[in-house]
Amino acid sequence: MYKLWYWSAVQGRGEFVRLALEAGGIDYVDCAREQGDAALLADLNDRTGRTPFAPPYLEIDGLVIAQVANILQYLGEQHHLAPSGLADRLWLNQLQLTIADCVAEVHNVHHPVGTGAYYDEQRPEAARAAEQFRAERLPKFLGHFEDAATANDGEWLIDHRWTYADTSLFQLVAGLRYMFPKRMATLAPEYPGLMRIHAMVADLAGVRAYLASERRIRFNQDGIFRHYPELDAA
Amino acid sequence: MYKLWYWSAVQGRGEFVRLALEAGGIDYVDCAREQGDAALLADLNDRTGRTPFAPPYLEIDGLVIAQVANILQYLGEQHHLAPSGLADRLWLNQLQLTIADCVAEVHNVHHPVGTGAYYDEQRPEAARAAEQFRAERLPKFLGHFEDAATANDGEWLIDHRWTYADTSLFQLVAGLRYMFPKRMATLAPEYPGLMRIHAMVADLAGVRAYLASERRIRFNQDGIFRHYPELDAA
Repeated sequence: MYKLWYWSAVQGRGEFVRLALEAGGIDYVDCAREQGDAALLADLNDRTGRTPFAPPYLEIDGLVIAQVANILQYLGEQHHLAPSGLADRLWLNQLQLTIADCVAEVHNVHHPVGTGAYYDEQRPEAARAAEQFRAERLPKFLGHFEDAATANDGEWLIDHRWTYADTSLFQLVAGLRYMFPKRMATLAPEYPGLMRIHAMVADLAGVRAYLASERRIRFNQDGIFRHYPELDAA
Repeated sequence: MYKLWYWSAVQGRGEFVRLALEAGGIDYVDCAREQGDAALLADLNDRTGRTPFAPPYLEIDGLVIAQVANILQYLGEQHHLAPSGLADRLWLNQLQLTIADCVAEVHNVHHPVGTGAYYDEQRPEAARAAEQFRAERLPKFLGHFEDAATANDGEWLIDHRWTYADTSLFQLVAGLRYMFPKRMATLAPEYPGLMRIHAMVADLAGVRAYLASERRIRFNQDGIFRHYPELDAA
């Protein structure tokens, strides 16, 4: 049984791991949701040797794996959530790392000058960062993922079944829609392939059950994707 | 023969790939340094299907691999620049991804509110970002890499030979020393293991020859690590 360690009150980066586990029907314990964030901090601080820099991390039989793309690559190999051919594996990891870059830039929108400070302490800077993100970076990322969604003959990113990068694209689109409802309403029609993958992932049996359950934490103002209306515009 | 595509006038993210290739004695053509950045842009724009989001990317026999950690993982497997055991591979990839996170935060210091704008257009914001990075994030990252450097019985990160994560740590330390000479002079003594790895990588035959050659571009004010004296402090 996998142990997943991630903050209990936000989707955050842990959600990319949760979604792959849920879509794949893989059993896991979401430790901090059962034991609290203090238990997560204690677990993290007690570790020595090969330690995670930050949550999320996944533990199984003494093996501890951190960094979302690293965890997903591992799960992909162990549970066939990814193809096994070299070129396909590289492409999928490449996409996941580009999703991670996009997520980091999203976080930077509301925390441009101080990861350790509150949003309220950096609102003017966040407004500037958001303007540029909406105008330039967001369409560039979405265009790239649209190209990826249409580079395959099938409906998914690779072949004819979902992979961990499909579930990650779902989460990225869902988060961006929550954070930038106006901007995404304008942009979404330009990316039909990406929106198709979002819809198909939402309709996977495991994901549908997960989204309807209490295990899915709602988007809120403490995660990576935050809805501050002043940072959004059509 | 590998083709490496990256901007010709900066070390940037391409340098992590260049260093692994040079340390490993692996032949490659640094395409944009021979043909210019216009050729890189043309190559990137002409691609269809599975395209890179951004340089660097590596091409061999029709296979195109982007994202630094992805490229290094590939080179590690193909050229034995990484151990083959599962736990070791995961640990190395995890470290490389944490190095990538640190590099992204370094870039964010001088471009906190506009990736597409100049530093001069965001100096007050950069000053704020730098202060927090120097005080909080930098020691946290360096402490993590120090733990990694001392988690192994040998002198390197894993076993008794260098890996691509060792060459990447070298570049991270070199870049941080260029960008924050005062701050790093204060901090460096606290991280002897990390500094040891930096020195040992610099002394590898392939790296020594590379650093003395014209192939090594000097640090400058267009790359990721930039020395703006106003952003540094002891």
